[in-house]
Amino acid sequence: MMQDERLLVVSAHAADFVWRAGGTIAKYVKNGAQVHLVVLSVGVRGESNDLWKAPDQTAEHVKEIRTAESRKAAGILGVKNIEFWDMEDYPLRFSEKQEEDMVRRIREIRPTAIITHDRRDVLNPDHNAVHEFVFRCSVESNSAGVITPGLKATSQMQLYGFEPHQTELSGYVPGIFVDITESYPQKVEAMECFKAQGHLIEYYKQRAFMRGNHARRLSGRKDCQYAESFARVFPQVASGLA
Amino acid sequence: MMQDERLLVVSAHAADFVWRAGGTIAKYVKNGAQVHLVVLSVGVRGESNDLWKAPDQTAEHVKEIRTAESRKAAGILGVKNIEFWDMEDYPLRFSEKQEEDMVRRIREIRPTAIITHDRRDVLNPDHNAVHEFVFRCSVESNSAGVITPGLKATSQMQLYGFEPHQTELSGYVPGIFVDITESYPQKVEAMECFKAQGHLIEYYKQRAFMRGNHARRLSGRKDCQYAESFARVFPQVASGLA
Amino acid sequence: MMQDERLLVVSAHAADFVWRAGGTIAKYVKNGAQVHLVVLSVGVRGESNDLWKAPDQTAEHVKEIRTAESRKAAGILGVKNIEFWDMEDYPLRFSEKQEEDMVRRIREIRPTAIITHDRRDVLNPDHNAVHEFVFRCSVESNSAGVITPGLKATSQMQLYGFEPHQTELSGYVPGIFVDITESYPQKVEAMECFKAQGHLIEYYKQRAFMRGNHARRLSGRKDCQYAESFARVFPQVASGLA
Amino acid sequence: MMQDERLLVVSAHAADFVWRAGGTIAKYVKNGAQVHLVVLSVGVRGESNDLWKAPDQTAEHVKEIRTAESRKAAGILGVKNIEFWDMEDYPLRFSEKQEEDMVRRIREIRPTAIITHDRRDVLNPDHNAVHEFVFRCSVESNSAGVITPGLKATSQMQLYGFEPHQTELSGYVPGIFVDITESYPQKVEAMECFKAQGHLIEYYKQRAFMRGNHARRLSGRKDCQYAESFARVFPQVASGLA
Amino acid sequence: MMQDERLLVVSAHAADFVWRAGGTIAKYVKNGAQVHLVVLSVGVRGESNDLWKAPDQTAEHVKEIRTAESRKAAGILGVKNIEFWDMEDYPLRFSEKQEEDMVRRIREIRPTAIITHDRRDVLNPDHNAVHEFVFRCSVESNSAGVITPGLKATSQMQLYGFEPHQTELSGYVPGIFVDITESYPQKVEAMECFKAQGHLIEYYKQRAFMRGNHARRLSGRKDCQYAESFARVFPQVASGLA
Amino acid sequence: MMQDERLLVVSAHAADFVWRAGGTIAKYVKNGAQVHLVVLSVGVRGESNDLWKAPDQTAEHVKEIRTAESRKAAGILGVKNIEFWDMEDYPLRFSEKQEEDMVRRIREIRPTAIITHDRRDVLNPDHNAVHEFVFRCSVESNSAGVITPGLKATSQMQLYGFEPHQTELSGYVPGIFVDITESYPQKVEAMECFKAQGHLIEYYKQRAFMRGNHARRLSGRKDCQYAESFARVFPQVASGLA
Repeated sequence: MMQDERLLVVSAHAADFVWRAGGTIAKYVKNGAQVHLVVLSVGVRGESNDLWKAPDQTAEHVKEIRTAESRKAAGILGVKNIEFWDMEDYPLRFSEKQEEDMVRRIREIRPTAIITHDRRDVLNPDHNAVHEFVFRCSVESNSAGVITPGLKATSQMQLYGFEPHQTELSGYVPGIFVDITESYPQKVEAMECFKAQGHLIEYYKQRAFMRGNHARRLSGRKDCQYAESFARVFPQVASGLA
Repeated sequence: MMQDERLLVVSAHAADFVWRAGGTIAKYVKNGAQVHLVVLSVGVRGESNDLWKAPDQTAEHVKEIRTAESRKAAGILGVKNIEFWDMEDYPLRFSEKQEEDMVRRIREIRPTAIITHDRRDVLNPDHNAVHEFVFRCSVESNSAGVITPGLKATSQMQLYGFEPHQTELSGYVPGIFVDITESYPQKVEAMECFKAQGHLIEYYKQRAFMRGNHARRLSGRKDCQYAESFARVFPQVASGLA
Repeated sequence: MMQDERLLVVSAHAADFVWRAGGTIAKYVKNGAQVHLVVLSVGVRGESNDLWKAPDQTAEHVKEIRTAESRKAAGILGVKNIEFWDMEDYPLRFSEKQEEDMVRRIREIRPTAIITHDRRDVLNPDHNAVHEFVFRCSVESNSAGVITPGLKATSQMQLYGFEPHQTELSGYVPGIFVDITESYPQKVEAMECFKAQGHLIEYYKQRAFMRGNHARRLSGRKDCQYAESFARVFPQVASGLA
Repeated sequence: MMQDERLLVVSAHAADFVWRAGGTIAKYVKNGAQVHLVVLSVGVRGESNDLWKAPDQTAEHVKEIRTAESRKAAGILGVKNIEFWDMEDYPLRFSEKQEEDMVRRIREIRPTAIITHDRRDVLNPDHNAVHEFVFRCSVESNSAGVITPGLKATSQMQLYGFEPHQTELSGYVPGIFVDITESYPQKVEAMECFKAQGHLIEYYKQRAFMRGNHARRLSGRKDCQYAESFARVFPQVASGLA
Repeated sequence: MMQDERLLVVSAHAADFVWRAGGTIAKYVKNGAQVHLVVLSVGVRGESNDLWKAPDQTAEHVKEIRTAESRKAAGILGVKNIEFWDMEDYPLRFSEKQEEDMVRRIREIRPTAIITHDRRDVLNPDHNAVHEFVFRCSVESNSAGVITPGLKATSQMQLYGFEPHQTELSGYVPGIFVDITESYPQKVEAMECFKAQGHLIEYYKQRAFMRGNHARRLSGRKDCQYAESFARVFPQVASGLA
Repeated sequence: MMQDERLLVVSAHAADFVWRAGGTIAKYVKNGAQVHLVVLSVGVRGESNDLWKAPDQTAEHVKEIRTAESRKAAGILGVKNIEFWDMEDYPLRFSEKQEEDMVRRIREIRPTAIITHDRRDVLNPDHNAVHEFVFRCSVESNSAGVITPGLKATSQMQLYGFEPHQTELSGYVPGIFVDITESYPQKVEAMECFKAQGHLIEYYKQRAFMRGNHARRLSGRKDCQYAESFARVFPQVASGLA
């Protein structure tokens, strides 16, 4: 049951969680799951192209705008737990301290699933670095010898990978389609918060339509109009075939 | 719920369904699912090595023994619907008539999932041929223009691939682990029916133990002692992450 | 220069050439290239689902409709040379006679490039069979010892693969993006000919938009609004990097 | 020890065994191994381009020339057991009878290793068909239930794949390098028998030089000047690392 | 001959060399080879889960236990040269100093083969880091310009990769099977030294049984009861096929 | 037209650009393109084996020789813009400062294409590091938020990968063949500058011959005698098929 789920979403930049998982997040919140969102960087350098067209633009201003947009979008999706790690992007580089922090957060949240970037994004090295980081932290979190006072080790939770922008060139393969028909309007509203990446709104609307088509074709679920797909890092473990 | 499931299992030879899916089959039957089993060939030529050690052995006799063993094993697993297609093996070759027959059977049974051999078995060309055949028939079954009087087209059902004997050389990757702890004793009993392949009984007991270890490690399900894994031909389509 | 090109397009079914290459075909015709189109099957069994919903539908009637639609669409794209090979589909099976015929056609047309289905379509075994067939015929056509009286052997021409419907599951990787902005309206008009596959029109409009986005992102060509992508069977051979 | 080895080489066309394994064959013969050579087709249609440039050339004449060249080259390599199966090429198609014949030959020869074409040659569908055929026959040969009166089943022997002409496009990966320095002069002499494929002689001389370079670089064997590489179908089984 | 071999085994943690190569190591020692063992970390954080269940456990105590166990197991296998690099694990991070040290050790030992972790272990990022490190050091060791006073450059030695725990998910493919029937009892005894990883003893006993089955099936060596498999980083270079 | 092209070539070591792209560089210069060459390290440690055979050799002297050779070879190819970054090799490690410098150089040069090392070289970890570095810098250069005063962001330019020494083991696949027949004599002359790597001259002459053979076979361009191949990081974007 979704209300027993705890979802941790780790987003490289301010908007990634919306384009790539906004429908799933909104659906989980709506159905009573806990959703925790970590935005590592607001993407001042790498994902704010349109904002930098303004004359006399400054990094501070871009950061303010992006943070506000990200916060607003998360609110529309219903996310209450959002944290900004305030990292610089392009490139994102992780310290040992951040690795320890993430292990601690995983052990506090104890997610049933983590969604983050997939193994490879042929056009965005930051996304690759985030995958590697989250994967490593999730493994460390499972080990009793990695001591975090007051917090016990976890068991391996499922890890899901976001769709990158150009899937085939990135070697992305959908491992699961989530029907987001019921939360699609929220996803659209959340996407519309990002002024600096306006060209992506239509793109990701169509992506949801395309994945809906795929999901119907693969399953016969006729009422699935919109979907999001995710890669699986690990195979499913279940009571039966599903 | 498992009692709403209809499982079609297509086994190249007399014992494949036991080694590779016996625990899952027994669990499904036990939990009220319908299970239909098709054994294409009893494997007189390719999978009866030990029987051929008997002096003056004949193909007829081997066939009798293998059919009886297969039927007995299916019974232990609780399968009531079993059909033998009586094909010659090594090599298995499919006619147009058999392709039409399989489409018809799929439309009659209307399986929610089909389990058969995976795409590639590096040591058994028959298994490869069966995968190709079942895949093709499942696609044809979904098309309204392939006419089978009195039977309507299906929607795409899930296709699962059996583990081949030597997985890594065959490019096999587990897509799902099914916990078979509750039906494991039945699987063992069913495996013990096959006299001609006695060396495989210990092998597949250990495989179930190994897959149980993997399933626990990947999920934290501490009570999963034994498991079977299957490849996925298509990704999962679901209401949420699972 | 495009007016020196001779394009051979081999389409498994009546509409494949439109969804998958309609923009490129129209652009080539418009710019003076010769385009030859072979439709192997009109797809009565496998690609006419909606037509079969009509009560008392017959194969003859479906075939008439599909042939007319295909011919009309080809006309809109400007194609004058179209031939229907009238094969049955689902499954498509090729005879030795057809292999000889295709070699002969390749030697008559002497295409500078052939476009056909790509190596693998995870949801359509006919498409796989066509790829294999065309590839084999193109290789035979290059060999002087394969005698076709009055027709000389060819040199290896480029082979391009169509996008399959679900690209990532099929292992499809774009090898080239063709800017179809100028011929996109014709593609849309041609797609609208296919009544039995109405759900695909919106799908392939969006695909052209998506590929336009990809092409811009990968090249900086700001005026490329719509594109089609193709796989390459062979690498490019050129005077310089391109 | 090489004198205990029995090598079966299955060559699609008249010259394949020379370009791709001539040095290894000669070395084995010289060191006392038994070498059996099967030439499935002399390659009248697909591998005799230059001969077909002669005016009034006929298939019979090409066949005579190719057979003579092939026999002569085999002689230079020291092969005494050569059989021509006289199949037509481009395309090579195998009958059930030929499959039975090959199983019988494998059981008569009882090779310690089989060398034939590798899984995939991007420019030669015949080579792919031969790989599939030999692989299937080798598996059938190992099964006691495939009855060949008077001949017992074999155990799995090693299978090696020839280098195709364009390796990277064919997905070819060297699994073993054989030092052919001592037999290289024989290989060159044998290659020079093939008048219809003169352009390949220099090509395969250089290939032997290149593989010699690779072998030295990977092993420090300074005296390895020339080498041939082969793909492995199965991993090595050994007493120690080797 | 094995007595001319010098084996360098680089183990990420205290027990890896036992689970993954214990049989091969013992066999090499027994047959007169030199075996040098480097244990980079005893695995206090990542591979001592059971020890951390003791109340008031400390890192120092865990380290003591693990070091003693590792030393004892090495002794059972007959290894005399063992060095503990005393690195912290989870994550293992390599300094430039350690890279230089490893190059120097390789040049001192001059191994004919190195065994270490394979390219990828889907559940253990430390193992991946060790592979990368050892590979890099082996290449540097071969280069004359990397100066280590008093020690000459090596030639490329063979590199073998250990089996990871979950092979298929890690993309592991066996490149060679080593028959360890004669040293299997020692491997079992050595495995029993590791109290903190008791669940792995049965697991790796069964792995040796499974690999023995595979080795027999692939080679007909009927007396091979137990085996270990390794990946190959480089292909074999040899005098003949082997 | 080639005279509108601006080529940036990033070479890990002093000679890489010659072996791997010398013919293409010379052809571009000859036809009026701008060519900018960056040599990151002269390869004192990793690519000067023969020089280190001289008694009392010093790093300074090796560096002098290699720099002079590299400069001379570039001159023969017609390159006027060459810069030596003077990095230490084996291993090459990149600082944040160097990443910023490279972004700035890309924005100054505004290359239409960048040629550098391909994704993976199984025998040279430096080459892998350079690929990763250049790829990352090219992506950063395209982003408006990565500020370099006075220099505007670029659009994505094509990235091409050099052939590694052992292609198949490195997973290298040719994406384009460039006909270098007209500039081949210059390539040979430039290669002859490198005394420390004399064994590679014959090797790369033969490579050019082999790639010429491949290019002719794949295209029918009969006059292409010598070629260089490159991998493509991104697919081509074009007005038509090409």
